[in-house]
Amino acid sequence: MNDKEFLENIKNGKMSIDEGLAYLKDFNFKDIDIAKLDFQRKNRRGFPETIFCQGKEDFALVEIFKAFAQRNESVIGTRASKDQYNLVKKALPDAKYNPTARIISLEYENREKIGNIAVCTGGTADLFVAEEAALTAEFFGAKVNRYYDIGVSGIHRMLSKIDEIKKANVIIAIAGMEGALATVLAGLVDKPIIAVPTSVGYGASFKGISALLTMLSTCAEGISVVNIDNGYGAAYASCQINKLIEEE
Amino acid sequence: MNDKEFLENIKNGKMSIDEGLAYLKDFNFKDIDIAKLDFQRKNRRGFPETIFCQGKEDFALVEIFKAFAQRNESVIGTRASKDQYNLVKKALPDAKYNPTARIISLEYENREKIGNIAVCTGGTADLFVAEEAALTAEFFGAKVNRYYDIGVSGIHRMLSKIDEIKKANVIIAIAGMEGALATVLAGLVDKPIIAVPTSVGYGASFKGISALLTMLSTCAEGISVVNIDNGYGAAYASCQINKLIEEE
Amino acid sequence: MNDKEFLENIKNGKMSIDEGLAYLKDFNFKDIDIAKLDFQRKNRRGFPETIFCQGKEDFALVEIFKAFAQRNESVIGTRASKDQYNLVKKALPDAKYNPTARIISLEYENREKIGNIAVCTGGTADLFVAEEAALTAEFFGAKVNRYYDIGVSGIHRMLSKIDEIKKANVIIAIAGMEGALATVLAGLVDKPIIAVPTSVGYGASFKGISALLTMLSTCAEGISVVNIDNGYGAAYASCQINKLIEEE
Amino acid sequence: MNDKEFLENIKNGKMSIDEGLAYLKDFNFKDIDIAKLDFQRKNRRGFPETIFCQGKEDFALVEIFKAFAQRNESVIGTRASKDQYNLVKKALPDAKYNPTARIISLEYENREKIGNIAVCTGGTADLFVAEEAALTAEFFGAKVNRYYDIGVSGIHRMLSKIDEIKKANVIIAIAGMEGALATVLAGLVDKPIIAVPTSVGYGASFKGISALLTMLSTCAEGISVVNIDNGYGAAYASCQINKLIEEE
Amino acid sequence: MNDKEFLENIKNGKMSIDEGLAYLKDFNFKDIDIAKLDFQRKNRRGFPETIFCQGKEDFALVEIFKAFAQRNESVIGTRASKDQYNLVKKALPDAKYNPTARIISLEYENREKIGNIAVCTGGTADLFVAEEAALTAEFFGAKVNRYYDIGVSGIHRMLSKIDEIKKANVIIAIAGMEGALATVLAGLVDKPIIAVPTSVGYGASFKGISALLTMLSTCAEGISVVNIDNGYGAAYASCQINKLIEEE
Amino acid sequence: MNDKEFLENIKNGKMSIDEGLAYLKDFNFKDIDIAKLDFQRKNRRGFPETIFCQGKEDFALVEIFKAFAQRNESVIGTRASKDQYNLVKKALPDAKYNPTARIISLEYENREKIGNIAVCTGGTADLFVAEEAALTAEFFGAKVNRYYDIGVSGIHRMLSKIDEIKKANVIIAIAGMEGALATVLAGLVDKPIIAVPTSVGYGASFKGISALLTMLSTCAEGISVVNIDNGYGAAYASCQINKLIEEE
Amino acid sequence: MNDKEFLENIKNGKMSIDEGLAYLKDFNFKDIDIAKLDFQRKNRRGFPETIFCQGKEDFALVEIFKAFAQRNESVIGTRASKDQYNLVKKALPDAKYNPTARIISLEYENREKIGNIAVCTGGTADLFVAEEAALTAEFFGAKVNRYYDIGVSGIHRMLSKIDEIKKANVIIAIAGMEGALATVLAGLVDKPIIAVPTSVGYGASFKGISALLTMLSTCAEGISVVNIDNGYGAAYASCQINKLIEEE
Amino acid sequence: MNDKEFLENIKNGKMSIDEGLAYLKDFNFKDIDIAKLDFQRKNRRGFPETIFCQGKEDFALVEIFKAFAQRNESVIGTRASKDQYNLVKKALPDAKYNPTARIISLEYENREKIGNIAVCTGGTADLFVAEEAALTAEFFGAKVNRYYDIGVSGIHRMLSKIDEIKKANVIIAIAGMEGALATVLAGLVDKPIIAVPTSVGYGASFKGISALLTMLSTCAEGISVVNIDNGYGAAYASCQINKLIEEE
Repeated sequence: MNDKEFLENIKNGKMSIDEGLAYLKDFNFKDIDIAKLDFQRKNRRGFPETIFCQGKEDFALVEIFKAFAQRNESVIGTRASKDQYNLVKKALPDAKYNPTARIISLEYENREKIGNIAVCTGGTADLFVAEEAALTAEFFGAKVNRYYDIGVSGIHRMLSKIDEIKKANVIIAIAGMEGALATVLAGLVDKPIIAVPTSVGYGASFKGISALLTMLSTCAEGISVVNIDNGYGAAYASCQINKLIEEE
Repeated sequence: MNDKEFLENIKNGKMSIDEGLAYLKDFNFKDIDIAKLDFQRKNRRGFPETIFCQGKEDFALVEIFKAFAQRNESVIGTRASKDQYNLVKKALPDAKYNPTARIISLEYENREKIGNIAVCTGGTADLFVAEEAALTAEFFGAKVNRYYDIGVSGIHRMLSKIDEIKKANVIIAIAGMEGALATVLAGLVDKPIIAVPTSVGYGASFKGISALLTMLSTCAEGISVVNIDNGYGAAYASCQINKLIEEE
Repeated sequence: MNDKEFLENIKNGKMSIDEGLAYLKDFNFKDIDIAKLDFQRKNRRGFPETIFCQGKEDFALVEIFKAFAQRNESVIGTRASKDQYNLVKKALPDAKYNPTARIISLEYENREKIGNIAVCTGGTADLFVAEEAALTAEFFGAKVNRYYDIGVSGIHRMLSKIDEIKKANVIIAIAGMEGALATVLAGLVDKPIIAVPTSVGYGASFKGISALLTMLSTCAEGISVVNIDNGYGAAYASCQINKLIEEE
Repeated sequence: MNDKEFLENIKNGKMSIDEGLAYLKDFNFKDIDIAKLDFQRKNRRGFPETIFCQGKEDFALVEIFKAFAQRNESVIGTRASKDQYNLVKKALPDAKYNPTARIISLEYENREKIGNIAVCTGGTADLFVAEEAALTAEFFGAKVNRYYDIGVSGIHRMLSKIDEIKKANVIIAIAGMEGALATVLAGLVDKPIIAVPTSVGYGASFKGISALLTMLSTCAEGISVVNIDNGYGAAYASCQINKLIEEE
Repeated sequence: MNDKEFLENIKNGKMSIDEGLAYLKDFNFKDIDIAKLDFQRKNRRGFPETIFCQGKEDFALVEIFKAFAQRNESVIGTRASKDQYNLVKKALPDAKYNPTARIISLEYENREKIGNIAVCTGGTADLFVAEEAALTAEFFGAKVNRYYDIGVSGIHRMLSKIDEIKKANVIIAIAGMEGALATVLAGLVDKPIIAVPTSVGYGASFKGISALLTMLSTCAEGISVVNIDNGYGAAYASCQINKLIEEE
Repeated sequence: MNDKEFLENIKNGKMSIDEGLAYLKDFNFKDIDIAKLDFQRKNRRGFPETIFCQGKEDFALVEIFKAFAQRNESVIGTRASKDQYNLVKKALPDAKYNPTARIISLEYENREKIGNIAVCTGGTADLFVAEEAALTAEFFGAKVNRYYDIGVSGIHRMLSKIDEIKKANVIIAIAGMEGALATVLAGLVDKPIIAVPTSVGYGASFKGISALLTMLSTCAEGISVVNIDNGYGAAYASCQINKLIEEE
Repeated sequence: MNDKEFLENIKNGKMSIDEGLAYLKDFNFKDIDIAKLDFQRKNRRGFPETIFCQGKEDFALVEIFKAFAQRNESVIGTRASKDQYNLVKKALPDAKYNPTARIISLEYENREKIGNIAVCTGGTADLFVAEEAALTAEFFGAKVNRYYDIGVSGIHRMLSKIDEIKKANVIIAIAGMEGALATVLAGLVDKPIIAVPTSVGYGASFKGISALLTMLSTCAEGISVVNIDNGYGAAYASCQINKLIEEE
Repeated sequence: MNDKEFLENIKNGKMSIDEGLAYLKDFNFKDIDIAKLDFQRKNRRGFPETIFCQGKEDFALVEIFKAFAQRNESVIGTRASKDQYNLVKKALPDAKYNPTARIISLEYENREKIGNIAVCTGGTADLFVAEEAALTAEFFGAKVNRYYDIGVSGIHRMLSKIDEIKKANVIIAIAGMEGALATVLAGLVDKPIIAVPTSVGYGASFKGISALLTMLSTCAEGISVVNIDNGYGAAYASCQINKLIEEE
């Protein structure tokens, strides 16, 4: 619900004066002691606040989701466990869950999707990061195309998709182990690449450090990097760029 | 010299048939054994090849610059020492040098600058990275605005500039030590931020690792990161975004 | 029970001669083989000994708590699991437990609280460290004010509380991930800040190393740092300073 | 020169109206492009700004010192090399230099020293950090007592000084190698200890990491830690505490 | 059973010729494919082989213990879980288990204990390493004295025991966290110290790395170090020294 | 089934035209969205594709195995848990499992084994890596000889086997802890050694880093190294060499 | 000079009996106190001993080279500085030096070169490692083909050479920064690859650690790895394989 | 000069009463502000104090040596540069210097050497650590035997010396790179081994970390470890053991 919708709801009586007063009380941010919820963020930063679920105490998590629901604000919660979803669902039966992406979502509107973000992975095991990125980008209003298991150890798989990938506004390159996917892609396209190292691998992969260092050290240009397994962050940065390109 | 100019030069006799044949011989890439020079890169990737000078053997460096000069291709060399510049200058008296940015440049044309990239630093000691970024971005055809020494330990300095910074298409946030500049900026603007950790600091700064981890771990959205001290890489990624926004 | 109370108890018969002899036998420290309990510590160091529960064997933990109980010495046990609490409670039904702070407490007196310590966190997930700090400081006799979820990625939340925070004698700044809370606070106040990195985060946060390095590398002055998640240690150091300021 | 002195100087003609106007132009901060000098810091944060010399470009360093000199603001520059001092001295003949502490100082007033800060080192090789701490603390107006080479491998040396050390308001404990000085001191005194790991040592000392981890991991209470070799930071934090104790 | 006893048993008929032949078949080492058991080790290296249980497959562990039992060779197994003990006990009802030290033992003889090894710990939580060291040393025939919880954060506890500790031939100093126990002891005694870092602690203790670096970097002489939590290794090295001193 | 067999099957009617068409549809690679299966790999790279099971989602794992089964392609899956095997077995009752090597296998042909690969381990606890290597090498058609528990702390065990080991074409040297097995072997033989560090050990073994660094830093020649615990990779590299030697 | 040549020289008088006795005295190894020179190594290990020059004291280095010269044994010294070469040349005027490869060589015979080793680099800056590998391999009797600057950021450069590279018996893949060269090559060829990470790069390249981890973590098969910058070790391992393939 | 000699010198007039009074003034330790010299250490700890020269300021170093000279106390200074020696020599012409061991020595007496310490190295490049150990041990009164360049990559060199090495009371095993020397020795002898990792090597040797981890992780018993390159510390620990064995 944006500001205009709020005022119209008051005018046409969909919202009572009392409901309006309660709404305005938390206009800037709702202070629930253990958290300060930032409902104006969409205006200030372009995309709504989301909820990082991991490590939140149960009562806090539910209360936060309920605060969004009370204002009909769509919201997603990332890094949510199945147990956390069950708690939220009990309070808010409309909540949905994607177990691969580990995302709880509460959506009150249908947004048109714009632009083109390509989400690529090196292997099948990087799926959980890729789906976190793809679902987040779709929640933020971007069109997403998925290209999975096109890693560099079998370069013909990537080459068979490269013409499609080139059409995207931004490319999210997700890979674990040696993480060379972003480097090879960057040599073939002229679009910005957001690289996401994943914790996939063992031994000298060091839970994603190997792929992280590879991506930071790359000799190919046009690559910038987010935290290990941070599909959400890659989606956010990509959506900013995608939106700026489409809007201008 | 782009392909069209090449053909016109042949047609109007500015270039002889023999010169044209020599030119075509290296059309794809010039193989000088110790390096393969990629003159078609501007067409494939949007920006011309540049030269990473650090660690190159002297004879190789000079030969590479000369190959560009012979084709009247503008080029810059990054991470160049004063000594390397002197060698290049002896062979190519038109070469210029910026000692803070450590960039050798050879420019044969005047490009119009487009868009708006904000280059911000936390402190004065980050200057060498900031100037590498700024000069590279200008070489690649972007308008650049500089905001130096606006780090978070005196937040009023940043706040006094924030309205200007918000107008940029992309923001390059450069900081060493604790590297929190990008995080605070990201909370105040709605533009993509390319964060560059610098090796400035001592002790637990670990030559930029502290700032790198800060930038990767940030809880603020819209930040992606390049290698420590990699002003060049930040400029490249920013110019891609800047160009896509301006062109569409 | 301090020395004066001990002697008065003997004089007025509240304690028998035999009880007094048993008490004096362990006057310096009680040696129970696997531990040496230091009852004179309050006199020597200003605050009573506390019990680090983590890793203690069950029988030892219970015996240590009982030794304090037998002397009516108030005591807290930090980093205590629920299971450890249940063991202690069976032996000492007066023992209390705070599951967020993971503290077992046994209190025999009401102390007046003095001074003002501000406990601040960057996010909601830092709560377990913040409450360990706050409860410890209160046990040691300090007044505590809590400011939670005021992290730097939404700087307006911190600015709305800064005038209150400035009034504290000491500030405890608790943050995970990029850990920039302490730096920004230090630029705005003129009080000593004890910074506590937390293990909150993932990937390049490296279980608190990122925040630890940030806090150590900070370019802001007036910050000193304790171990990752060490709310107890931050409280101890803060209480020393708070007490010295109030007492003089 | 504080605000009151400024107004008196105008009133009694020591400063002309024109000089006064120039002074006011940079009242908040003087923006010299590559730096923003913060002359109001003494009012906001309690102690004047200082200059971190390491890594500053020569022209910038001199310009910054001159800006302070023009306003008769006392200032020190830390981590200054001999060469940097020579440059500053050429422009400002009153500048002084302490080669052990690597501090350039420009002092225009005599301050009375208050309180008591004990600066202790484990060994003789920690001297450069200790003197940086001691001189900084004296510049900030604290009385300092030095206790050098009292490390724990010969505990009788520390015990012979402990009664004096106990009288300090704050103790700065500086040690390299195994860095146990702070731990042993903390067991014997009831004052806050600011621990400074030093880069003294070799091999597994890892340029101060060993001492840093020791100090952070200590089981003794009342210790907080600053960056490796950061004598300046320890002095700043200590002076805040020393001043609060003395002033109240 | 040593060689002489073997021959005597044959001579006096305690062992049949067939039993003797079976015994000789594995005289050098018994090859059971997945392991090569080294029964001659006591002769070659002075102490019998022991069994490192952690990570051994169940069937292998039982077979190895049985091979020792069949030859009446006393043996201990270190780092044994409760489950491993239960498996061994089923096959060999005489096997004993110490859960703190995690040692399975099978003893067929009573050895006289010689010399004096002091086993010291910094805290109560280091007990599991200390008991592994103490029981191993006793198994190898040394007299052991235990001094637990005498860490440096309360130096008076160590000083009250120092005269006893000085009488040992070798001192095992076991400590986690900041691990300064060995350094302070080394300044007070003139006996070799084997230091054992433990994984006790959290955060910057890094599972024993902090204590390990402390012990390696120490400025006190006469200390050598074994692996983190390696009570067994410390006991072995100490027993070698203890035996050489007593025997000569 | 190789290409020739495919054509013969069509010719002699073992395979119908419809079956042939379905087969050809996925000739290059079968794209099942979340994976791209590479059936031509045996032709291109000499050995068939294998399946890295760890981290694969259940439905994906089963679908991949079924795709191989439908084409009668023998395949192994490495790093497979018992649970994963049970899922596969339900769909494909011919699947077999080796719990030590953690390998699921599906074999449709009997291959003759060629050459000689020696698989050596330092200790008994390295068995899981050794069997992964040995079974993989046998699947790829190599003859394997096993030499387990011949580590350098009892050098006579290795020396008793050295003449046999020398006869191999390639030696796989598997060791954890200090990992010196490869170095000592390399001094005694003149065959290429593929060294595999294992995660066996504790404390300063750092889950295989100690052994990895040892093997990389070795002063002995003829050793190259694969990832920690990577028995599979060592087998692959060894089989390439073994095959080239035997075939030429 | 091999054993047969030695005996023939004695027989035909080219070598006197006295010279023969001196020769036999050091037959096994020549003990010059600070070194034990291993002249029988060519027989035992297939290739002659070489000299690791770095860190050797000057008098020792010269004496070692002279010992080889006295026996007419060809030898190379790796990691030799220009200064070390000058010392050796003064004593042995026949010594030659390659400054890129940093190799001193002393050759007394012409060997026929066999087989085919492909030495590939990612960039021009990896030249010093590539030439160390190439010259060493040639010294050990292998034919070498060089493919430099074919890194993955411009994949068309590698693809233009791949048919030649496939013909080698072994491939040495040398790369710094993100080090993905070996992975991409392994997907395209069926020959063993020895990967060499180089220290080329800056920041998160960590002097070769990034490339090392990439190569160890690779998901491509057939790659084994040697130490950072270890061109010599890669050549040795490659020559063993090359020789076994050619000889059989 | 021990206490008895002091009193005899007074009695027989070799020392005047005034000289005696000056001597007694510093009897416990001489406090020269920047250092506290511990002349009673030989009585308390068994061996005299030595001087760690590295990092000492010039005036301090000379003053410390002079303090020893004035009392005719023999002393050595370790890790001394050539420049430091020249300074000391100017003040004290009797001072001697060993450039390999980097030791300044000042000796006033001839001590009989006792026992047997074996100093072994893996390679020739470890010489500087070995000689530091050997000279220190000789200064402390031990007989030393040297066994250099007997590393495990050519095991026959070690085996040819093993019978001699077995006769030592203690063995110092010095090695860089993979550092396996101590492990192999420990399997062959029954004497305590003090292992010293050295910084010799490159790349993954990480300036001695590789060898350090190897030595700590070893599966061989009877090894304890000192800091990287710490020949002095190994000698000290060995001399304690050697003396205890010889004296009893």
